[in-house]
Amino acid sequence: MSLFVSFEGGEGCGKSTILKRLSGRLESEGYPILLTREPGGTPIAEQIRGIILDKANTDMDPRTEALLYAASRRQHLVEKIWPALKQGKIVLCDRFLDSSLAYQGAARGLGIDEVLNMNYFATEKTFPDLTLLFDLKPEVGLERIAENANREVNRLDLEKLSFHAKVREAFHELARRFPSRYSIIDASQPIEEVEKAAYEAIKERLAR
Amino acid sequence: MSLFVSFEGGEGCGKSTILKRLSGRLESEGYPILLTREPGGTPIAEQIRGIILDKANTDMDPRTEALLYAASRRQHLVEKIWPALKQGKIVLCDRFLDSSLAYQGAARGLGIDEVLNMNYFATEKTFPDLTLLFDLKPEVGLERIAENANREVNRLDLEKLSFHAKVREAFHELARRFPSRYSIIDASQPIEEVEKAAYEAIKERLAR
Repeated sequence: MSLFVSFEGGEGCGKSTILKRLSGRLESEGYPILLTREPGGTPIAEQIRGIILDKANTDMDPRTEALLYAASRRQHLVEKIWPALKQGKIVLCDRFLDSSLAYQGAARGLGIDEVLNMNYFATEKTFPDLTLLFDLKPEVGLERIAENANREVNRLDLEKLSFHAKVREAFHELARRFPSRYSIIDASQPIEEVEKAAYEAIKERLAR
Repeated sequence: MSLFVSFEGGEGCGKSTILKRLSGRLESEGYPILLTREPGGTPIAEQIRGIILDKANTDMDPRTEALLYAASRRQHLVEKIWPALKQGKIVLCDRFLDSSLAYQGAARGLGIDEVLNMNYFATEKTFPDLTLLFDLKPEVGLERIAENANREVNRLDLEKLSFHAKVREAFHELARRFPSRYSIIDASQPIEEVEKAAYEAIKERLAR
């Protein structure tokens, strides 16, 4: 059976590390896995992502940014996610639609509903079956990033703390709005505990 | 007074030539003019346009393409068109929203309403005050392009004739839908006549 799982959360919440560990674990149990993140290695989506993350593009309007994320998402869905789901794979995706709703919709003030409605054009109402929210105070997440010399700081990291607080609040709002697909995980726990909680949430879905 | 005029039509309809001639004429009469076309020289919109028109990007999904046009349109509106209108200029724009509705909405089959609704996110329902449709049989337009050695053939030119016939039909549908802003000009006439008709349509608007 196929399953579409998105990994969401603020900067430094550890979701990408957990995603890699879980992917290996599920694969060793025999599950066919697609581990991916926008732009997913598709050349067109990579080019789009390059424009979004270019630090020189400081004049980018928030709606332009949201449209570019949606364009990248569309190409990633068409070329990678939908084919993998058709092949019966478990798709583990590092961020998806909800990041646009939290970052552009809530934190940049465009409105969650406006950004969701526009994204319907891109996704044709494809939602993840399961969204794991790695919940963490932004102060802690940003500190983790600052300590991690292996990770390059990008344009989003440079935003102010209040921006990241809005992002966290928005993810909680989305969890209330989409309770059937959301699973909130306390990302302040030791990494083994975080991984265990995520693993169990996925296994519970697979058992349904 | 400000006025936002879009120039629309199929490939080879002559709108860009007319636009340049009209711009000079109106400027010599003392009107402040912004002559523009998406991406309008804004660096971000230029980068987006580069992805759309890259002949190597044959895997581009039609919805990705429509989202990229909307992103480029948004940036162009924010950086160029809205400021010019605020300064009381006459904005003469080579293609705008209606091209997306005709090309992606109708000819690529996404649906005019779906593309219009998505574009509302980009434009916040800004429409041109006047849309000049330079109407021409696609056979004639494509022949003109083939004869014009100065103009590089791009990805859109390579589409089949039936595609361009759908584009023309869609522009007529849009003219019926938005009669108050549309003015249809027979682009098969000698260029002086075409220019005269476009000039008169603009002057009539300015006199209102």
